[in-house]
Amino acid sequence: MRDSFSLDIEDIVKTAHAVADAARETVLPYFRSESLTADNKAGQGFDPVTEGDRATERAMRDVLARMRPQDGILGEEYGTQAGESGLTWVLDPIDGTRGFMSGTPTWGVLIAVSDQNGPFYGIVDQPYIGERFEGGLGHSRVVGPMGERQLRVRGERSLDDAVLYTTFPEVGTPEEGSAFKAVASKAKLTRYGMDCYAYALLAAGQIDLVIESGLQIYDIQAPLAVIEAAGGIVTDWQGGPAHQGGRVLAAAGRQQHEAALEILSRVA
Amino acid sequence: MRDSFSLDIEDIVKTAHAVADAARETVLPYFRSESLTADNKAGQGFDPVTEGDRATERAMRDVLARMRPQDGILGEEYGTQAGESGLTWVLDPIDGTRGFMSGTPTWGVLIAVSDQNGPFYGIVDQPYIGERFEGGLGHSRVVGPMGERQLRVRGERSLDDAVLYTTFPEVGTPEEGSAFKAVASKAKLTRYGMDCYAYALLAAGQIDLVIESGLQIYDIQAPLAVIEAAGGIVTDWQGGPAHQGGRVLAAAGRQQHEAALEILSRVA
Repeated sequence: MRDSFSLDIEDIVKTAHAVADAARETVLPYFRSESLTADNKAGQGFDPVTEGDRATERAMRDVLARMRPQDGILGEEYGTQAGESGLTWVLDPIDGTRGFMSGTPTWGVLIAVSDQNGPFYGIVDQPYIGERFEGGLGHSRVVGPMGERQLRVRGERSLDDAVLYTTFPEVGTPEEGSAFKAVASKAKLTRYGMDCYAYALLAAGQIDLVIESGLQIYDIQAPLAVIEAAGGIVTDWQGGPAHQGGRVLAAAGRQQHEAALEILSRVA
Repeated sequence: MRDSFSLDIEDIVKTAHAVADAARETVLPYFRSESLTADNKAGQGFDPVTEGDRATERAMRDVLARMRPQDGILGEEYGTQAGESGLTWVLDPIDGTRGFMSGTPTWGVLIAVSDQNGPFYGIVDQPYIGERFEGGLGHSRVVGPMGERQLRVRGERSLDDAVLYTTFPEVGTPEEGSAFKAVASKAKLTRYGMDCYAYALLAAGQIDLVIESGLQIYDIQAPLAVIEAAGGIVTDWQGGPAHQGGRVLAAAGRQQHEAALEILSRVA
């Protein structure tokens, strides 16, 4: 499949940036807005979905309808739309809605392009900072407040010298949480609360590991493409493919990955 | 004391921004730098102090030596320098060094001006985002990616509708940690990892509570001034003054403050 669209690489990248630009423009007026209202998608608990979330995904889909009508779409808010090209755009207009709702600069707009083998190109965009992490199709870079820089993971180091991130200290089920804590207890430093920004930090060579569970497809596909393009490793907790979501282990080097996997893979 | 320098307000504010500008310029080249090296200040554990931390405080002190030689200085890296005016500049060149070392955009440069009653003016600056929160001496504003906005806390709400932040889930001693968890269990949402940026979010009306312990004077004075100027409340866990550091409770309204204080004040 990838061979058949090799001539479209430039068009795909151009489209992805147009989608990210449209998202950035649409979402920012909602950020830290006093009129921000949170629905309750799950009907219970705290799962805010904002007007901004939906408006942003509509703006992203509008760009795709215009520039890549032949491709399919899988989005967090508006579900699946079939395509004819074998390519699917995987969209999360606001990844990290709880961070978004509390004003943090760690949520992101996620855009991935995938075929039957998973994502091969991704963008993680932080509209407030004005920072865009991109990976795949020959690109691996961040453009932001300090200009353009190459993305490159930091490489091998031992777990006891590794910096680990996850979003919530209460990771997944009790069994998943215990496994996470076992890894954390061996790491040099464990920190929380970065949402999708943690994956971007890993691609940028700043941290060693991100461990999460319960992810959706649209949560992981863009980070996965960005990290792999930067030389990192993203698998599930058994070492298999992670692009369908669920339990995710992202690592800056084989050494950290193997050390974490040895513990996490004990979870059935 | 405050009466005697009433004519200097403009000069103090101008100086504070010059100090923040110098810090921003000095610190940014160290951020996400490959050559970043971490010393180990404490001699054990993980307490990184970077070259950037020290260079930045020197740059801040240079501005004060030129513009306000009559004032005292209390800085994280270079200690106390006596003054003659009764005013002290309280400086933390990089608050949140662990966040800084892992590339997050949630560390900050902290600048406070205090007299014997505590801080009456403060700046929390996030150089990478290019965002400056300011409070006191008639100012209460943020200048950043979305221009200039007034800072105003969100006001009263019940604890079960409140958003709570702290930096690490392991808050202080076991007894302090238990009290924190008791508050967290009643809040709507608890999140972690924002360093001093959490206080800025509170001043900006985005969240309800920040609870921490083990703070130094230079960790809390600038956030305290910014939050009070935005209408918020900052005390220790007994409801007393917080400007000497230690245990801190910051709240967006009296209702959240009282509900949290009722639990936290049980810690001896």
